[in-house]
Amino acid sequence: MDQQRIDRLRAVYRDGLLNDTLPFWLPGSVDREHGGFILARDRDGTVIDTDKGIWQQGRFTWLLGELVNNVERREEWLEAAIHGAKFLDAHGFDPVDGRMWFHVTRDGRPIRKRRYAFSESFAAIAYGELAQATGEDHYAEKARQTFRRFIDHNLHPSGVEPKFTDVRPTHGIGFPMIAIVTAQQLRDSINLAEAAEWIDRSIDMICQDHLKPEIQCVMETVGPKGEIIDHFDGRTLNPGHAIEGAWFIINEGKLRGDSQLIKTGCTMLDWMWHRGWDSEYGGLFYFTDVYGHPVQEYWHDMKFWWPHNEAIIATLLAYQVTSDSKYADWHRQVHDWSYAHFPDGEHGEWFGYLHRDGRVSTPLKGNLWKGPFHLPRMQLTCWQILEEMSDDYG
Amino acid sequence: MDQQRIDRLRAVYRDGLLNDTLPFWLPGSVDREHGGFILARDRDGTVIDTDKGIWQQGRFTWLLGELVNNVERREEWLEAAIHGAKFLDAHGFDPVDGRMWFHVTRDGRPIRKRRYAFSESFAAIAYGELAQATGEDHYAEKARQTFRRFIDHNLHPSGVEPKFTDVRPTHGIGFPMIAIVTAQQLRDSINLAEAAEWIDRSIDMICQDHLKPEIQCVMETVGPKGEIIDHFDGRTLNPGHAIEGAWFIINEGKLRGDSQLIKTGCTMLDWMWHRGWDSEYGGLFYFTDVYGHPVQEYWHDMKFWWPHNEAIIATLLAYQVTSDSKYADWHRQVHDWSYAHFPDGEHGEWFGYLHRDGRVSTPLKGNLWKGPFHLPRMQLTCWQILEEMSDDYG
Repeated sequence: MDQQRIDRLRAVYRDGLLNDTLPFWLPGSVDREHGGFILARDRDGTVIDTDKGIWQQGRFTWLLGELVNNVERREEWLEAAIHGAKFLDAHGFDPVDGRMWFHVTRDGRPIRKRRYAFSESFAAIAYGELAQATGEDHYAEKARQTFRRFIDHNLHPSGVEPKFTDVRPTHGIGFPMIAIVTAQQLRDSINLAEAAEWIDRSIDMICQDHLKPEIQCVMETVGPKGEIIDHFDGRTLNPGHAIEGAWFIINEGKLRGDSQLIKTGCTMLDWMWHRGWDSEYGGLFYFTDVYGHPVQEYWHDMKFWWPHNEAIIATLLAYQVTSDSKYADWHRQVHDWSYAHFPDGEHGEWFGYLHRDGRVSTPLKGNLWKGPFHLPRMQLTCWQILEEMSDDYG
Repeated sequence: MDQQRIDRLRAVYRDGLLNDTLPFWLPGSVDREHGGFILARDRDGTVIDTDKGIWQQGRFTWLLGELVNNVERREEWLEAAIHGAKFLDAHGFDPVDGRMWFHVTRDGRPIRKRRYAFSESFAAIAYGELAQATGEDHYAEKARQTFRRFIDHNLHPSGVEPKFTDVRPTHGIGFPMIAIVTAQQLRDSINLAEAAEWIDRSIDMICQDHLKPEIQCVMETVGPKGEIIDHFDGRTLNPGHAIEGAWFIINEGKLRGDSQLIKTGCTMLDWMWHRGWDSEYGGLFYFTDVYGHPVQEYWHDMKFWWPHNEAIIATLLAYQVTSDSKYADWHRQVHDWSYAHFPDGEHGEWFGYLHRDGRVSTPLKGNLWKGPFHLPRMQLTCWQILEEMSDDYG
């Protein structure tokens, strides 16, 4: 990757973030009447649902704080981040058990709580950025508390009726993955004391249970001792998710100067790139089967925005830390396919849900799962990586 | 529809049932080792998951009994039906609360129970057919008990943690629809005393809450008084499901000679045909939005086998009872599109999950949701309707 390409890509990500993605959401999505953000948007930004997903409220608050702390101290971003945190404070938590909701009405009345605790992980990193941005200690305290709740609930779920009996216990890669990136964020924002411990434990959990060198695969769901479960759910792989986990680990290796961690993350990327890349139409399949059987999820071959965001980061980061030209090639492949199909040239931002061949399935820009997170995080992270690469050249 | 077309279609459905669909499942799927049926099959019949879905165990048992009672008394069918009922007896019910499981292992250990009670409705009709086929009263008693549990749990769910808070209560069309067809089946097989009462109550519930003449629509999910809920879930329509409900009601009108019921069912069919038919590629969309907004479910435009089975029945039945040539045209349209895309000419049976343009998404023939039910029920029902139409000519 020469300096010219670095410069060009850096402009694509930076300008995309500042001039395309952020203006789609700001200031229009700030709800001045009821607090928080209205993020369920049609293609052109029209509101299609006033309900609020707590994941997205926390994630957008995090993004705004991250921008304040790492790009520039714009008052508009800081004010909106504080606005988001206020909504989480007022409406994010169930006073009965202290757990966070998943889905609330526009005015914050609860609709749904889920069995797991990812609302907590996103709120924790949001509070962490606000602690860093404002220096106010109550945010840091909330960040620590909410991180602790995320961990505790995942390790010892209580007050939750389990979805399955204990006949075939399983665990997914989601918890250790999100524990890594949440602890990384909180180490950065509030210097969380137990960050390293949780990062190490989570990477160990992934390596011991989810990585299968004998078949070159990252398993999404395994038995208690990492057993491959030869049924529909156990065989289902989520290559983009594993690639997201890969860059969390590569990033940790880069920060620590730990070549073993870098190798682990790159191996995960290698395996799941080969299993996920669609050699016929391009792009990453959403699900594949570990043994090539039919996947039960009938939309398995669709192309979602976020696995492509994660793969763009992972390949660029892998190239930065290894200088292996294979990763520059893969980065070009996934970047080019993504930019050919996902961006909405007319109204900005990215479409989220494409058919296998790249045609848009549903044009919505936001819902309970899609909001200002994966795309702007990718744009910011890649911009930062390319800055570093440019400095290395200079 | 002239006699020649009636004869030709009758052969398509009858021969398809007897010579294509049934041989795919019988005798191969009978599990002589652990009981019940192994129905999760790849395209060519290879087992891809040994787990057993209780819905499909009950449905296949019902189908076999229905064939014995309505087609011919084949020992193979009767023996397999009794075999299926034994598995339901031994492994279908949770002894702790008497509710039925949703998903069990090959040897019947429970994996998952669901919040709702459709396993019970399918088991009830299976037991009903066996009561009729064998004359053994214990089957009739089980059919009545299991029907009662289906009704009770849906009206007064207990021991179940609700998925949503009570901030925005909703109810779906699924319960009254399935109550109609389950009561119809049990009236036929065991002369269930309360059948008419439940059919009347359920049709009233659909008419009062789900039918919206002002916008010509059957709503899938509504508020407590039938309010349209202007959020993603409330706006989502399932045209094939509503068309299935339509033929249950047309059928009731036909049996009772009640022209008002026939009119209600045909109106439901008319509205949802217009909302569901894909005028560009043909076939029925899985989901649409009542106001034409983007649907949150990104696979909304896929073509599933079962809505097409239900629409083939509904249009043929509507034609039989009204002689309106519009319904013969629609029947030809949905029959032709379905038979051009769903049947697997090489290994028999139908594919279940097609992309919008008719390409196969996943080639599997059976899983927890797909098994020997919608397709053979369509083939049997249409064969019977065409027999009656032929008699009318004669």
